[in-house]
Amino acid sequence: MMPEAITSLQNPKVKKAVKLADRKERNTTALFLIEGYRELKRAADSGVEVTTLFICQQFFLGTNENALIDQVKNQGAEIVVCEPHVFQKLSYRDRPDGLLAIGKQMQRSLHDLKLHLGYKKNPFLIVAEAIEKPGNLGTILRSADAAGIDGVIVCDRCTDIYNPNVVRASVGTLFTIPVVEASSAETLKWLKETNVKIIAATPSAQQEFTHANLNGGIAIAVGTEQLGLSQQWMKAADLQVRIPMHGVADSLNVATATTLLLYEAVRQRK
Amino acid sequence: MMPEAITSLQNPKVKKAVKLADRKERNTTALFLIEGYRELKRAADSGVEVTTLFICQQFFLGTNENALIDQVKNQGAEIVVCEPHVFQKLSYRDRPDGLLAIGKQMQRSLHDLKLHLGYKKNPFLIVAEAIEKPGNLGTILRSADAAGIDGVIVCDRCTDIYNPNVVRASVGTLFTIPVVEASSAETLKWLKETNVKIIAATPSAQQEFTHANLNGGIAIAVGTEQLGLSQQWMKAADLQVRIPMHGVADSLNVATATTLLLYEAVRQRK
Repeated sequence: MMPEAITSLQNPKVKKAVKLADRKERNTTALFLIEGYRELKRAADSGVEVTTLFICQQFFLGTNENALIDQVKNQGAEIVVCEPHVFQKLSYRDRPDGLLAIGKQMQRSLHDLKLHLGYKKNPFLIVAEAIEKPGNLGTILRSADAAGIDGVIVCDRCTDIYNPNVVRASVGTLFTIPVVEASSAETLKWLKETNVKIIAATPSAQQEFTHANLNGGIAIAVGTEQLGLSQQWMKAADLQVRIPMHGVADSLNVATATTLLLYEAVRQRK
Repeated sequence: MMPEAITSLQNPKVKKAVKLADRKERNTTALFLIEGYRELKRAADSGVEVTTLFICQQFFLGTNENALIDQVKNQGAEIVVCEPHVFQKLSYRDRPDGLLAIGKQMQRSLHDLKLHLGYKKNPFLIVAEAIEKPGNLGTILRSADAAGIDGVIVCDRCTDIYNPNVVRASVGTLFTIPVVEASSAETLKWLKETNVKIIAATPSAQQEFTHANLNGGIAIAVGTEQLGLSQQWMKAADLQVRIPMHGVADSLNVATATTLLLYEAVRQRK
């Protein structure tokens, strides 16, 4: 039996979820929002703890929703049924699909990544330094998943990785790949200790990325949309590579550039 | 001498510009908005006709603004000075840079692209069918410019290419590369006539994109974010290629996937 649907935007559960749009609220509560079937399924399968699941059957698109609702209910989540106008207030999407959850932040650190990698030889990593736009960070995660990356280290957090637009642009790969947060200082120290080569893309490099050797243990490092990597990362880079630019613009979108480097590494590492 | 600054949001010029956020208004007037220094500079250098330029000196970031203002003024634009709160109402950005113009739509057709290409052998083209998100279409254009593409054909327009977010994500390359709009039917006919090979990316293809021959005259065809290319394009494709997926997600972001194909072609076509 489903409980009665919430009809008021003043409902305390609804108000709590709405507040999680705000970064400060996410930081204070260590909670965040997960919207959409694919995203929630990947979160649930990856062991993300869901506390509350808001559902609105009128928006369901498929036939698998009930199995997913049962799955998160069995994992301990409270199921909250909403009227469409209430769900729409919660949703971040133009076309909501009737599923939106509150989850606990994963709080993974460099230590967790080290455990995950164990004694793996030649890890294939990304370092994302101070990316500003959630959509770009999410797209980088989606590409990292596709390229079979071993881990993503988000340094000196600029975009909050629990921003709803990161979850969305990542299509839930935020949950399936090891994404950790760490300071640049500890990350640089660990990469050097473990002989992982740092690959930095910069327009001023001599070598084109398709001519560089991307085998072995590597970390592809990318920086802000405006300014690229900071000096500390540029100085620490073992290899600087350039993506050839044949037009009038002097750079690519950061997520796009990262994906080119990832797939060139995939091509070489076969 | 600069005219006096507009202080009211009710000013008719301001109201006209605000209306251009709406696609219907853009379609009716054949006008559109160009915001930002880089974007406006590329538009002005490419011969886009600017009718009105709104400026707000308090937001200027650099020292080249006055030269650009003179350039568009000399090309016939009216210069309209705004108070910051008025400019902010017009702006699409979190951090406006004090330049926002109304331009005339370029209205380029397949005929213009044919003229542009002339008897060029082996053209390197993109067909973008029914892309939904303006940010994705803009990013595709930015990558197309970087890859040195000869032209982009937007088929069966879904996103309006004059959406402010296309202009922004393209960083003004919308103006510098030949972007034309055409129906799928006439585009398919012309590509076949001119022996341009159609390359379609699809998860069900046998061949990986890095193993396919991307030399000669080619058109890389990409479709909607949700469903990919339509059946008519898949059937017409000379070559179907696959981007290997090593993770849990079954596809990449469409702009990212397009860029991978573009740069693989660049690598091969040297």
